[in-house]
Amino acid sequence: MTESDLQRAPERVARRRRIDGERSRQAILHEAAQLATIEGLEGLSLGRLAEAVGMSKSGLFAHFGSKEELQLATIETADVIFAEQVVDPALSAATGLERLQQLAERFLQHVEDDVFPGGCFFASVAAEIDRHAPPVRDRALKTIGEWFGHLVAAVQGAQADGQINDAEDPVQLAFEIDAFLLLANANYVIMRAPEPLDRARHAIRARLALAVS
Amino acid sequence: MTESDLQRAPERVARRRRIDGERSRQAILHEAAQLATIEGLEGLSLGRLAEAVGMSKSGLFAHFGSKEELQLATIETADVIFAEQVVDPALSAATGLERLQQLAERFLQHVEDDVFPGGCFFASVAAEIDRHAPPVRDRALKTIGEWFGHLVAAVQGAQADGQINDAEDPVQLAFEIDAFLLLANANYVIMRAPEPLDRARHAIRARLALAVS
Repeated sequence: MTESDLQRAPERVARRRRIDGERSRQAILHEAAQLATIEGLEGLSLGRLAEAVGMSKSGLFAHFGSKEELQLATIETADVIFAEQVVDPALSAATGLERLQQLAERFLQHVEDDVFPGGCFFASVAAEIDRHAPPVRDRALKTIGEWFGHLVAAVQGAQADGQINDAEDPVQLAFEIDAFLLLANANYVIMRAPEPLDRARHAIRARLALAVS
Repeated sequence: MTESDLQRAPERVARRRRIDGERSRQAILHEAAQLATIEGLEGLSLGRLAEAVGMSKSGLFAHFGSKEELQLATIETADVIFAEQVVDPALSAATGLERLQQLAERFLQHVEDDVFPGGCFFASVAAEIDRHAPPVRDRALKTIGEWFGHLVAAVQGAQADGQINDAEDPVQLAFEIDAFLLLANANYVIMRAPEPLDRARHAIRARLALAVS
């Protein structure tokens, strides 16, 4: 070890601490996002999460400071997971119709894969929307609104490509597809069987067959 | 007052106490069902409900004994309200197609009328199904299963009447209509505007126009 290494040692230790801190923060938030789909985002107290990740409540408090900060950071983490698993790969498809089909199919697949143990994270959060503090509510609705916007934009893209009939109202068609996805998720969580996911796949195929120009 | 009246006085007092007790029990459960759609059935503690109805926690405890008994009685009460407002009048319609249309329309109307402040009681309870104790979960799923059964039976009735094409799978068609209703409820609770209810009405009309034989 040179003298210069020695001089930089405290800096390296600090950097490693930041990296470890960031890693452990991410691990905690991943667990929080999982837990929130079972116990609710409102059930996600620092005490309950501390128990789940095997940390002290004061250790968690050092990471997040308040339940609201924890909830907001948990939503951000769920958003990143949902973007990686569902939205981003679907939006990289070449045509509007493919983007629409992939948004739906990747949504169903992430439910079937139990990416979150209680089904779609944002459906869980939406179901208790009246219970959230305004900043938490607004942050959750941002992702929910963006999701619906992706469905509408994909329909509009498919219309621009000449693949979906111009007579279709993009918002109405997006509503109908989103409805099949939401009930599939709700019934999958109850039944733990693929049947409702297949019902949604069937419904979406039949609806798109009607919409194709 | 005759001697015989005098003899029966304690009996009358006891009967009046039972009636008052029953009335106040119903009033408490009505409040509990309302509250559960905002704070969740799991958020419905004896303490929280006592605060909402202005009773002591020990007074409530005398009525229900435990959180689980309170939850079960609350589901029963919500079931009675839902039957009165939605299911029973719809099932009294003369044909299968009318029963199907009325189940859907009366569902949407009870959401629009804010019969429960947090939207459909059973959608709220279903969204947190993993959190409920098994007896509570089973009781809630009974009503949810019966609801879906009514939709399927109405489709089958309409097929028997020759009003819906025999080629339609009754369970698939019931799934699609139920999906429109569930998303309408979820989005109404978020937006507090009739638009999603009208989207569902439009979707159901279009879907039934296809199914009519």
